[in-house]
Amino acid sequence: MSLAVGVDIGGTKVAAGLVDEDGAVVCTARRPTPGRDAGAVEDTIVEVVGELAAHARVCGAEVVSVGVGAAGFVAQDRATVLFSPHLAWRNEPLRDAVQNRLDRPVLVDNDANGAAWAEWRFGAGRGESHLVCITLGTGIGGALVLDGRLERGRYGVAGEFGHMVLVPGGHRCECGGRGCWEQYASGNAVTREARELARSGSPVAHELLRRAGGDPDAVTGPLLTEAAQAGDPAAREVLEDVGTWFGTGLANLAAALDPGTFVVGGGLSEAGDLLLGPARAAFARSLTGRGYRPQARVLAAQLGAQAGLVGMADLGRRHATA
Amino acid sequence: MSLAVGVDIGGTKVAAGLVDEDGAVVCTARRPTPGRDAGAVEDTIVEVVGELAAHARVCGAEVVSVGVGAAGFVAQDRATVLFSPHLAWRNEPLRDAVQNRLDRPVLVDNDANGAAWAEWRFGAGRGESHLVCITLGTGIGGALVLDGRLERGRYGVAGEFGHMVLVPGGHRCECGGRGCWEQYASGNAVTREARELARSGSPVAHELLRRAGGDPDAVTGPLLTEAAQAGDPAAREVLEDVGTWFGTGLANLAAALDPGTFVVGGGLSEAGDLLLGPARAAFARSLTGRGYRPQARVLAAQLGAQAGLVGMADLGRRHATA
Repeated sequence: MSLAVGVDIGGTKVAAGLVDEDGAVVCTARRPTPGRDAGAVEDTIVEVVGELAAHARVCGAEVVSVGVGAAGFVAQDRATVLFSPHLAWRNEPLRDAVQNRLDRPVLVDNDANGAAWAEWRFGAGRGESHLVCITLGTGIGGALVLDGRLERGRYGVAGEFGHMVLVPGGHRCECGGRGCWEQYASGNAVTREARELARSGSPVAHELLRRAGGDPDAVTGPLLTEAAQAGDPAAREVLEDVGTWFGTGLANLAAALDPGTFVVGGGLSEAGDLLLGPARAAFARSLTGRGYRPQARVLAAQLGAQAGLVGMADLGRRHATA
Repeated sequence: MSLAVGVDIGGTKVAAGLVDEDGAVVCTARRPTPGRDAGAVEDTIVEVVGELAAHARVCGAEVVSVGVGAAGFVAQDRATVLFSPHLAWRNEPLRDAVQNRLDRPVLVDNDANGAAWAEWRFGAGRGESHLVCITLGTGIGGALVLDGRLERGRYGVAGEFGHMVLVPGGHRCECGGRGCWEQYASGNAVTREARELARSGSPVAHELLRRAGGDPDAVTGPLLTEAAQAGDPAAREVLEDVGTWFGTGLANLAAALDPGTFVVGGGLSEAGDLLLGPARAAFARSLTGRGYRPQARVLAAQLGAQAGLVGMADLGRRHATA
């Protein structure tokens, strides 16, 4: 049995898993992301891979490769993290640093590339020749799979859809810009809008505020989604607004790329049709050439929170055996 | 000698040329685009091809193929025009209609695909693995050449960059949307802004208005470019504003696609650095991850107004001999 490790490094947690050739997760390991210290993140990667390798040996198997997904700009060499808005990496030679300590082939890629690859290989994107995958989390991650190949761009940093400007001069973004799509359609946007609404004193937000114990800053994405699912009108409004912004951005991507399918994953996608319904409506409403062109499907992702590590395990394995 | 015909059908004129294997134009033929009547456009194509074929015979050569570039959405089959905002085509089987009358292999493609292909094969985009080509004319046309292949999308209509929304709720666009990029960065945008400025009565626009004989509606794109080149401050402001919008949109495309090179052609690109200077500045200023990533070059196209027909001739020839 050939097992590969996939590691998904997010802004708040490191999730790793032992993954077989069919994309099945044999077991997992988790740690909080250790602040912004690059060395500490490396230690954590080495630690979780060690833990999973020990588990593999108990099963009589070996770990053949390690794929590390990073929330940042990864260079074409798939070794260097050029920049991460949420972590300390700046031109960080992450692959070599980890590979030297693990004595196994290591590959580094953007986390959204990992998730997209998993959905194309094993999930909602199977069989699609022109796939755009969106990870709706704290921000927006994205990736393109064209004819079964991840399209990384000239320098490796394609797919940063969340940082396309949709509202010139709009909300400041962690990337340094203003009005980026992810400021209007992401977990962060939901939280900001929901707190602002809760703070407004509007009667429509009364129940939402009650759920948050009277403290607007206690409104979180999951709390809002739960309230919306229970029928709370203010929470539904927020998801509708954010979904509409999301759909407008999808129409922009369709104008540029004409995909057959969008697959939407990430934490915020758990709001399901409360978010994707308005998104599909706004997408159909804003698409250029609407009525005279076949329209891309907008599907929910199938692999949930494990998509990133499953994809990175598969990419790492392919690279090691290529 | 193997000669191919390329035909470029724009909103106002049909330009055709006899093109050799190295992309050199042997001779050309031109007609005004006959209104919005699909049948009359077909007649015009047949007419110009006939004229050029007669010329080829005089040179002792035969026309081996015909490539037709259309300002519209061309389906994946490269035979059907799904929709054209400026012409009468709606699901028009243009290739078969023309091929039946010409008795030669015919290929239809989007006009911006033709121009991009020409710049990649023979012009400013040579050798670039990740090329985004923009045609700045009345509107914005665009195309992607990835690893030497035109990327047309799942249904053939990728590259409609001009219809990405950059200003939600902004100016109405001929595509039916609002706030499309081409409403802010194109020949149409230049004309609209220049006329509005001329009409404003502002002293800054006095000289521009004088050049237009006192009539704001007589300000055209070429007149404005000429005034800007002569140093007129109002004309320069307009090109600066439009260039800034153009650069903001380029940064969005770079976020999504990470090209190595943008090539910018089309009539408005003749304003040169008066437009491309501000565009490059806005591009560098709005690019996500700036300072931590290699930055795409923004180059002027090299093939001028003939790019479309040169590219279509080459695409048609390749298709016929494949």
